[in-house]
Amino acid sequence: MISTFSFCEAKSGVKKIAVLGSTGSIGQQALDVIRAFPSRFQIIGLAAGRNIKLLEKQVYEFQPKMCYSAKKANISYRAEALSMEEIASHPEVDLVVIATSGIVGLRPTLAALKAGKRVALANKEALVMAGEIMVSDARQHRARILPIDSEHSAIWQCLRGERSKVQRLFLTASGGPFYGLPQAQLAEITVEQALEHPIWKMGRKVTIDSATLMNKGLEVIEAHWLFHVPFENIKILIHPQCIVHSMVEFVDGSAKAELGFPDMRLPIQYAICYPDRLSNPGLPHLDLSKGHSLDFQPVDNDEFPCLKLALNAGKLGGTYPAVLCAADEVAVELFLSHLIGFLDIAPLIERTLERHQGINQPSLDEILQADAWASEYAKLLAHCHCDACPEPGGGTQQSSEELAQ
Amino acid sequence: MISTFSFCEAKSGVKKIAVLGSTGSIGQQALDVIRAFPSRFQIIGLAAGRNIKLLEKQVYEFQPKMCYSAKKANISYRAEALSMEEIASHPEVDLVVIATSGIVGLRPTLAALKAGKRVALANKEALVMAGEIMVSDARQHRARILPIDSEHSAIWQCLRGERSKVQRLFLTASGGPFYGLPQAQLAEITVEQALEHPIWKMGRKVTIDSATLMNKGLEVIEAHWLFHVPFENIKILIHPQCIVHSMVEFVDGSAKAELGFPDMRLPIQYAICYPDRLSNPGLPHLDLSKGHSLDFQPVDNDEFPCLKLALNAGKLGGTYPAVLCAADEVAVELFLSHLIGFLDIAPLIERTLERHQGINQPSLDEILQADAWASEYAKLLAHCHCDACPEPGGGTQQSSEELAQ
Repeated sequence: MISTFSFCEAKSGVKKIAVLGSTGSIGQQALDVIRAFPSRFQIIGLAAGRNIKLLEKQVYEFQPKMCYSAKKANISYRAEALSMEEIASHPEVDLVVIATSGIVGLRPTLAALKAGKRVALANKEALVMAGEIMVSDARQHRARILPIDSEHSAIWQCLRGERSKVQRLFLTASGGPFYGLPQAQLAEITVEQALEHPIWKMGRKVTIDSATLMNKGLEVIEAHWLFHVPFENIKILIHPQCIVHSMVEFVDGSAKAELGFPDMRLPIQYAICYPDRLSNPGLPHLDLSKGHSLDFQPVDNDEFPCLKLALNAGKLGGTYPAVLCAADEVAVELFLSHLIGFLDIAPLIERTLERHQGINQPSLDEILQADAWASEYAKLLAHCHCDACPEPGGGTQQSSEELAQ
Repeated sequence: MISTFSFCEAKSGVKKIAVLGSTGSIGQQALDVIRAFPSRFQIIGLAAGRNIKLLEKQVYEFQPKMCYSAKKANISYRAEALSMEEIASHPEVDLVVIATSGIVGLRPTLAALKAGKRVALANKEALVMAGEIMVSDARQHRARILPIDSEHSAIWQCLRGERSKVQRLFLTASGGPFYGLPQAQLAEITVEQALEHPIWKMGRKVTIDSATLMNKGLEVIEAHWLFHVPFENIKILIHPQCIVHSMVEFVDGSAKAELGFPDMRLPIQYAICYPDRLSNPGLPHLDLSKGHSLDFQPVDNDEFPCLKLALNAGKLGGTYPAVLCAADEVAVELFLSHLIGFLDIAPLIERTLERHQGINQPSLDEILQADAWASEYAKLLAHCHCDACPEPGGGTQQSSEELAQ
């Protein structure tokens, strides 16, 4: 059940960490945590996309041995320029934090797992798209996937020391900023409104995914792979206070929940420090002694088409989750660029999934091909405004097939 | 931190169990659980007080090897008549369930611990009165104390697999049937009203202790000894729904809670089955998927004089907790016999504690002497109606001292 997370001793001495995606939201928060424990952790590798200025600052501060930037910039301070895969699998690395988003983190994650590393994983797309391959690689190479998402960290914490079968998992969801709003109002939602998550501070893509509940759907697929629980036993509960981060129900009827202040640095720190728990006065703490009211409501999947699409894609398996991720990435990007409306996101993903011919137990290449196809197809759908086209361009599935040819 | 509960493998084969106090509320529920798993558990010893009829039925059903009754009745069916200490420490016993209440369970519990047994402990007075001795005996003889109280079971479950320092414990309390009632109404409370606990089905003594919150105070002392957490780090939260049975806060700011249907058979089963969790369709299960509202409020100790007395006695340590238990037992018995009012319970205990001259790090004999003294003194206080007597007999502390001489 929890073989991927078996309890183990930390290596003695300083833990050497590589952070891939160090300039993004999760990456910066991971460095915040690492900065708080200079005698325990050492940054040995950093990798980032296009934010060269911030990467240079980080390299200056942490003096890593290895460095990568997507822009192939010449980062100084004696850091050796290597690829993300090379950094992730470098013999000196004890722990790799995968803080990239989207498909870019997939190959480095697999490289780290094949090198038997501990992988603190924030990149949910990697696990959603290639869960079967990742779990198999981790097992084969005695690597460990340590989840960073607050929900999966909560489940992982609740499973600590447990060896019995799990009955059900309950992922909590804030419901996003638009929970309970009628359709008519949803159609009018602006990018700015969607980016204002009521509680969690996150990147733009994941904030929009939270508003559509796509994020929760992806988390269900993640949970399925991380904890080997069938989809029908993974439930979602709307929990507006975001204090309980998730729950595990055991076969004896007992359940455990993990609670905390909604701040991503807490689950990041848990994964980095595991199996220890360290006091960090720099982080906000929830004071349970003050009294709280915690509400949990079952979610109506029909209210959230993106959630429904994700759950279906997860159950279908094969290349469908990769297509889901790629189409969602395109749809969110189009929404953030004011090119489609909030209610156009789900239909765009749906049409792409409908058009896809899935492959069972796909290879990595087949997953990457499905991703590329879905990305291209979703863009095509969105940009075509002819009468024959499916929504959001307007039209039918038949015409979308023609378009794709 | 959790050395008393270190994770260990169950011995292979059938677990042989002795239940002391088998005819009481917890004892009967323990037999209910054991009855559900005939291939895993075998009753090897039963002990009861005065309910000979029920004990005979139980002996007939479970055919134990050993048996004890306080009435020295001749129980047939080939069960050998032994003392509770002999049963608790018998070489064939794997697990002893201590389901007695009050001081009667103390010596058998210590006998079991000295014999290196696993002790599933429901008798909270034993741990409150002689916590230091019990924890030391358990450590010395590599015995294990497995708590049965729902609160301590919850904490134990939350600590599973954890090895880091605990920041705080949060014991939840329903608040009892009179939570929020003004003093004037409390004075009029009848025995029948006090026996109607809103949620938990328990014995008479513990139900009254729940209404005064003395029970929660005793649980704080228990938690202190079981989990080695200082008194100032053990907090009480009023949680009317009784779904979260307690919570543990760790140094990293993360907290874990255990949730379940409020039925004593669940924590009893957890202790008996530990380290396994078994599915038992005979027990009621909480359906988390249906949605819930869970409220937690800090408790005002001043509102609950019995709670305040218990916390003070716990902090004072030595023989004070034994005096607290003995005086409370007398006071509750007097209330149940309609001899004193609900609001007379706390002053009777308070006067007894005030009169006591505590002994630090007492021996077992000193604890038993303190218990006997307190019991006698509290009865004396309660039955004296002269003008010079302290409340509830009416009067001052000075006269109570004269009375005690």
